[in-house]
Amino acid sequence: MDRSALHKISYGMYVIGATREGEINGQIANTVFQVTSEPATIAVSINKDNLTHAFISDGGKFSVSVLAQSAPMELIGRFGFKSGRETKKFADVSYRRAATGVPILLDYTIAVIEAAVKKQLDCGTHTIFVGEVVDCDIIADGPCMTYEYYHSVKGGKSPKAAPTHQQDQPKEPATAKKRYVCSVCGYVYDPEKGDAEGGVAAGVPLEELPDGWVCPVCGSEKSVFTPE
Amino acid sequence: MDRSALHKISYGMYVIGATREGEINGQIANTVFQVTSEPATIAVSINKDNLTHAFISDGGKFSVSVLAQSAPMELIGRFGFKSGRETKKFADVSYRRAATGVPILLDYTIAVIEAAVKKQLDCGTHTIFVGEVVDCDIIADGPCMTYEYYHSVKGGKSPKAAPTHQQDQPKEPATAKKRYVCSVCGYVYDPEKGDAEGGVAAGVPLEELPDGWVCPVCGSEKSVFTPE
Repeated sequence: MDRSALHKISYGMYVIGATREGEINGQIANTVFQVTSEPATIAVSINKDNLTHAFISDGGKFSVSVLAQSAPMELIGRFGFKSGRETKKFADVSYRRAATGVPILLDYTIAVIEAAVKKQLDCGTHTIFVGEVVDCDIIADGPCMTYEYYHSVKGGKSPKAAPTHQQDQPKEPATAKKRYVCSVCGYVYDPEKGDAEGGVAAGVPLEELPDGWVCPVCGSEKSVFTPE
Repeated sequence: MDRSALHKISYGMYVIGATREGEINGQIANTVFQVTSEPATIAVSINKDNLTHAFISDGGKFSVSVLAQSAPMELIGRFGFKSGRETKKFADVSYRRAATGVPILLDYTIAVIEAAVKKQLDCGTHTIFVGEVVDCDIIADGPCMTYEYYHSVKGGKSPKAAPTHQQDQPKEPATAKKRYVCSVCGYVYDPEKGDAEGGVAAGVPLEELPDGWVCPVCGSEKSVFTPE
């Protein structure tokens, strides 16, 4: 049994939005799929520990913003590696409230879908919510981000709450300059590559990064990084 | 509301295998996803009209063969556009019976997953089956076929039973030479492109195709094609 076989399942990358009593929240998910054509229904698997799970359970509706391939790691970190219990995830990003009140991300978004929950299935750590599509639209051109692109090109990790999380993700081989791992999200700072999105050229060791530099995935400070 | 937004959800392409009283069957599905990590569970949405649905309902287990990008249209047509009630789908392909008895396709397959059904959710025309992973392995290198690749590069269509089927799929603009549609599966023969997999060069009109030529998707004879 080789559990990496499960990584051969293809996914996209989505921000799932939800609302409860006027509050809004959102999180990254890769497990969105269409269930039926008539009527159009979609499903998403959400971890019970996530605030978005509580909001969908109580609010009975959710949105899907289909992320563009160009979505930066900071955006994915904001929605994927932080909890809505501590941060206002939709602060400082463009969004709108849909007809049902759910927030819809507009930055780096190709298509948006709004759904009303019709069924749900308890699957242990996660719940599958099945929602009837209330509205949907394409709002930008360009390729969508796939889960494979996120992992292979962007170097992204799966948070512990993700269905696809693996505890024993293989470490990459050591390089001459010291690599550091973000203890919050697992992002690896590789001095050979630098951090182009954060304005850091290749060749700069972690020790020499400016104090204001933060993890491009989850926004944590340099101090939480530990040697790989 | 623009339902093409639903086409921005990313999927892979899979053959779902199932067994009942010694009989075996399989079908194409794009709606496979991992639900939980511990224990590892996966879900698939299957149309109630399909024989595979009956086999999974009765047999309580299913397999997933993750198709390679190189999988030919004939293979997809065999498993996606024909019914196991009329054809033995696993005849003439390489497969093995897994420990639980489900058939696993070995041709053009990157990874295989075997699952035992733990839960199911009635979603109208379809059922979502959630299965605990019994075994899984990677059996070949190379890229997996994505649903987008199937549609955009291979020119594939969605059968009526698929969750992602759209009745009003837009027609492509008319071309100088006459295009013909397969009345069984919706495949469009475009003489400007020919049928490279069937050994037909670009520029050959349908009328001049050899009598033995069959639809590369579903295997139907030339006589079922009608002008677009």
